[in-house]
Amino acid sequence: MDRYQFYRACGVNLDLAVEAHALLRGATKQEIPGVKEDKEHYPQATVTTIHIFSATGAQALGKPPGTYITIEAPGLLTANPPVQEAVAQLLAQKLTALLQHLRVGPTDPVLVVGLGNWQATPDSLGPKVIGEFTVTRHLFQYAPQTLPPGSRPVSALSPGVLGTTGIETAEIIRGVVDRTQPRAIIAIDALAAGDLRRIGTSIQITDTGISPGSGVGKQRTAINRETMGIPVIAVGIPTVVHAAVIIYETLAKTGQGIERSPWVQNPNWAQGLVQEILKPFGGNLTVTPKEIDELIHNLAWVVGAALNQTLHTTLLQTKMAIPLH
Amino acid sequence: MDRYQFYRACGVNLDLAVEAHALLRGATKQEIPGVKEDKEHYPQATVTTIHIFSATGAQALGKPPGTYITIEAPGLLTANPPVQEAVAQLLAQKLTALLQHLRVGPTDPVLVVGLGNWQATPDSLGPKVIGEFTVTRHLFQYAPQTLPPGSRPVSALSPGVLGTTGIETAEIIRGVVDRTQPRAIIAIDALAAGDLRRIGTSIQITDTGISPGSGVGKQRTAINRETMGIPVIAVGIPTVVHAAVIIYETLAKTGQGIERSPWVQNPNWAQGLVQEILKPFGGNLTVTPKEIDELIHNLAWVVGAALNQTLHTTLLQTKMAIPLH
Amino acid sequence: MDRYQFYRACGVNLDLAVEAHALLRGATKQEIPGVKEDKEHYPQATVTTIHIFSATGAQALGKPPGTYITIEAPGLLTANPPVQEAVAQLLAQKLTALLQHLRVGPTDPVLVVGLGNWQATPDSLGPKVIGEFTVTRHLFQYAPQTLPPGSRPVSALSPGVLGTTGIETAEIIRGVVDRTQPRAIIAIDALAAGDLRRIGTSIQITDTGISPGSGVGKQRTAINRETMGIPVIAVGIPTVVHAAVIIYETLAKTGQGIERSPWVQNPNWAQGLVQEILKPFGGNLTVTPKEIDELIHNLAWVVGAALNQTLHTTLLQTKMAIPLH
Amino acid sequence: MDRYQFYRACGVNLDLAVEAHALLRGATKQEIPGVKEDKEHYPQATVTTIHIFSATGAQALGKPPGTYITIEAPGLLTANPPVQEAVAQLLAQKLTALLQHLRVGPTDPVLVVGLGNWQATPDSLGPKVIGEFTVTRHLFQYAPQTLPPGSRPVSALSPGVLGTTGIETAEIIRGVVDRTQPRAIIAIDALAAGDLRRIGTSIQITDTGISPGSGVGKQRTAINRETMGIPVIAVGIPTVVHAAVIIYETLAKTGQGIERSPWVQNPNWAQGLVQEILKPFGGNLTVTPKEIDELIHNLAWVVGAALNQTLHTTLLQTKMAIPLH
Repeated sequence: MDRYQFYRACGVNLDLAVEAHALLRGATKQEIPGVKEDKEHYPQATVTTIHIFSATGAQALGKPPGTYITIEAPGLLTANPPVQEAVAQLLAQKLTALLQHLRVGPTDPVLVVGLGNWQATPDSLGPKVIGEFTVTRHLFQYAPQTLPPGSRPVSALSPGVLGTTGIETAEIIRGVVDRTQPRAIIAIDALAAGDLRRIGTSIQITDTGISPGSGVGKQRTAINRETMGIPVIAVGIPTVVHAAVIIYETLAKTGQGIERSPWVQNPNWAQGLVQEILKPFGGNLTVTPKEIDELIHNLAWVVGAALNQTLHTTLLQTKMAIPLH
Repeated sequence: MDRYQFYRACGVNLDLAVEAHALLRGATKQEIPGVKEDKEHYPQATVTTIHIFSATGAQALGKPPGTYITIEAPGLLTANPPVQEAVAQLLAQKLTALLQHLRVGPTDPVLVVGLGNWQATPDSLGPKVIGEFTVTRHLFQYAPQTLPPGSRPVSALSPGVLGTTGIETAEIIRGVVDRTQPRAIIAIDALAAGDLRRIGTSIQITDTGISPGSGVGKQRTAINRETMGIPVIAVGIPTVVHAAVIIYETLAKTGQGIERSPWVQNPNWAQGLVQEILKPFGGNLTVTPKEIDELIHNLAWVVGAALNQTLHTTLLQTKMAIPLH
Repeated sequence: MDRYQFYRACGVNLDLAVEAHALLRGATKQEIPGVKEDKEHYPQATVTTIHIFSATGAQALGKPPGTYITIEAPGLLTANPPVQEAVAQLLAQKLTALLQHLRVGPTDPVLVVGLGNWQATPDSLGPKVIGEFTVTRHLFQYAPQTLPPGSRPVSALSPGVLGTTGIETAEIIRGVVDRTQPRAIIAIDALAAGDLRRIGTSIQITDTGISPGSGVGKQRTAINRETMGIPVIAVGIPTVVHAAVIIYETLAKTGQGIERSPWVQNPNWAQGLVQEILKPFGGNLTVTPKEIDELIHNLAWVVGAALNQTLHTTLLQTKMAIPLH
Repeated sequence: MDRYQFYRACGVNLDLAVEAHALLRGATKQEIPGVKEDKEHYPQATVTTIHIFSATGAQALGKPPGTYITIEAPGLLTANPPVQEAVAQLLAQKLTALLQHLRVGPTDPVLVVGLGNWQATPDSLGPKVIGEFTVTRHLFQYAPQTLPPGSRPVSALSPGVLGTTGIETAEIIRGVVDRTQPRAIIAIDALAAGDLRRIGTSIQITDTGISPGSGVGKQRTAINRETMGIPVIAVGIPTVVHAAVIIYETLAKTGQGIERSPWVQNPNWAQGLVQEILKPFGGNLTVTPKEIDELIHNLAWVVGAALNQTLHTTLLQTKMAIPLH
């Protein structure tokens, strides 16, 4: 039983396609039918783009067909403004290209959604990004003179989490989409990775939206083109790993052939083991570094800066000042 | 020009019907046609109920027809748990009666909306109340065994403010109402009073919802039965007064017959004066006590406790423990 | 190598004496010389009191001599007000007795210190407790008429964490102690447990203060009678477990005799394994439940209520209202 | 009775020396003995430097002798990154010169103190600045390899407010200074202005520290070279005006010669009038714009950026990455 099978068996989501792909391919780097991977190298980051273009590929990776771009920038783990600015610019480039590809024009209205729980630090990335970029939708009505020609109506929403609202996040967003008619959604979310080294250093951009069970939050319904009726780009950054990842690492590192374990006779052994160990909180346990507050603070700035560069080209060119709200 | 006319002329909202009524009646306590006022006295509080039952009354008070209950409890200004508990109980009583009157049954789903901006202390009452009571709507689906028979689905929403979202608050709420189909809304909001002594000591409960221009926030569209399609009860507590209130107090206290002022020749003088003085921020200036953070903290507890008592009768009786989210 | 040895070897702190004691005694429940344990049973909680009364006992448990009282109340894990009130009362009883034992009189000034980082949810218990009880020290000077006879000067401090201040927490507190001369310190801190079931359900009260390396924060210098010059009572609640706990659980549950492991030849194998697995963040990784924000919210209320009951007997009896700050 | 006399009579602090000076000089711009004023003009800002160099000047302005530099940048009122960067640079220049003038060398340890209450938005500037610049003091001990030669130990403290701690802010800071021995303090504080147009647009830098009664908080003891034993530079930005300012504006604008007022016979009339109007909250009422949260957010960035440029010259030149805390 390899890592990929283990994670699948015990319900650990691999929110990053790049991880799912790597694990699936394994040491032998076998090709996965229906999946294509490209790499680009930049001074501060590596970008891996995975295209899932068939149902076979989707099934194999456990992810819907579409494009998954991952920016990997280990420099994000230190307080390093030049790296942050370089990554923001790269993220803006990728977002701009993806919007274009989805035929979302430069003045088409966009709704940015900050998923997650602002009161739980590791899950607060989405809500913290709201406030780090400029919203303009209301200015078209209330202060159009502050907007240069070619501006885009941008709105923002921080819907909260199921435990606080009692409402599926997807329901809230769809309700707002129906009333306000944006042309696309950009959803920001904290993700769970399958490897500690991904925390705070990888940014995934995908045109497939948010799939059930992803993220640190408890979104149960997908937020994607199907459920929303418009394209949904998701920007996700791992801020935790599931506690089961530590369990796997332990099994792997202690070299005890999982195959030699007494558990292995039971086909559900992985799931059972993880449940047994993590049961006090129903298995919902995440592993986070202590510096998580600073990490989120820095990452929210990076994503906010990228959103401004992506969504407000004319605004930034004219350097017009936006009134405070 | 009396206080009522002054406030009207220069755009100061009197969010409290009890204030509008008192000012309109003036020193002579004249009867206003179409308006009825009752008073009850409790050890910790006085309750004034105003019924506006005709278009004439509504026009006179500048408020839609309906019931406006105001609990006045000066004891809320100190940290005094017994007063807080007594007021919470009184508020629950009034809310319960109002729901009954609106034919909202004990198991009918209710959506609680926390209006305002959690990042600006005087406007953070609504968002802070979310989190001070129990939501149950999701438990009906995910953990029904934790709910005693006769429980009510309660959901909650903190929609944010126009300046942060770019979307009218009413649009967000209506979108969520359409998707989740509650039977009634209870909207919590920070209000502006016309008298400093109202700050933190008066609680208004009304079945008329939130009217345009009310509140510290910038809600421009009404949130009421008409716009939402279901009954909307608003619970509002003044946390600020508009700066123009200080201007009026000054004019009144210095006894200079406003009629003798050189300004008085200009029919728009009141508005002009206020604009002239407050122009640096477009007139959007509010007066707050320094203890506002503690005040909000205490008031959020009072409203949250009242919501639990109102919405979760069976839950409280059975003393069942609700799982954390 | 048993759990106790494993934790010691790889630097996992057992902040709870009750855990250290249990693990040390092992399955055979052997007596540890110099350590005495008593148990009391209450409807909502079990209380275990451990006295370490000799250097041998201290060395064995890795904790300074003194009294360690642990309230265990699994009911704290749900939102259950009656349990919370019962635990607050129990905590107040134990604190009162401990103060008495330390010869801190009912009007002696006490400084409450909220340790930890309010921006990182799992570490925010201490700062959140500040604000949940009444401070009175300044009233003796500025508003003595609001204080009934027999009142106690209570002050509070939230010193922040080393990474934010660049200063050892102990230095900040000692500086304030020197200037303000309290008779005792009560320090509130989030702890790390050695067992997931302890998270949010155990409260430790000790007269030995905070020892180096304890807590989720990065306090490096002890905060105790020696470093502060006055008695220090610490109230700690586990909100995380170190990620190494999951590693141990995995090894233990998969039954692979740790003794059969290839690692075992290396005396540092446990430490090596843990470092190897957790290296991306220098090993500083903690495991937390997702509901941590609610848990902290509820626990802060419990500790604040207990502090009011402990420190403000006359204030509560006279039910005098304290002015807002 | 002119504005200056009015403010003095009714206890309104003019925290900005530039305001006190202008009001004192009056329309005729008379020279004040012992006070010298210089102006510099920059594209984004005007800088006024006032030197109070005699006891006469100090008495006249109600401020201790020293240097008061005020940067006035109306552009700070809009969300305008280039203006913010220009002002940060200007602030850094002035801080650098002042430190030099006070003979604080480039590697001398500096303590930055964020005064105010992070839970009350208008008073949260100081605490919000903490976290917007780099602290390094602890790295000298724990990670010296991350510091280039010529680095400066910088520490930070957010002491809280009297109402929350029960301790005078000056006591807390002095305690920490005694333990940690910095060579200078830079104290950040929200101020009260005497003119609404100053809110969010003026930054005062002074080598005289914080004087009693200044600021939005309730600091009662001075924080200056005398009380701290080391130089104290204060950086203050008005975020409110006292409500009495609105009272004066009203009297002034309605042109009713204050001298003709019936109040004028009573020498204490101004104080009496203000107390009468503002009594519900003991006069402690402040006027704030609604956008205060955004204003503070932007200003905290500006001050934080200036502190980094001032205190970490070598760090910025070498572009070394600082580890997260």
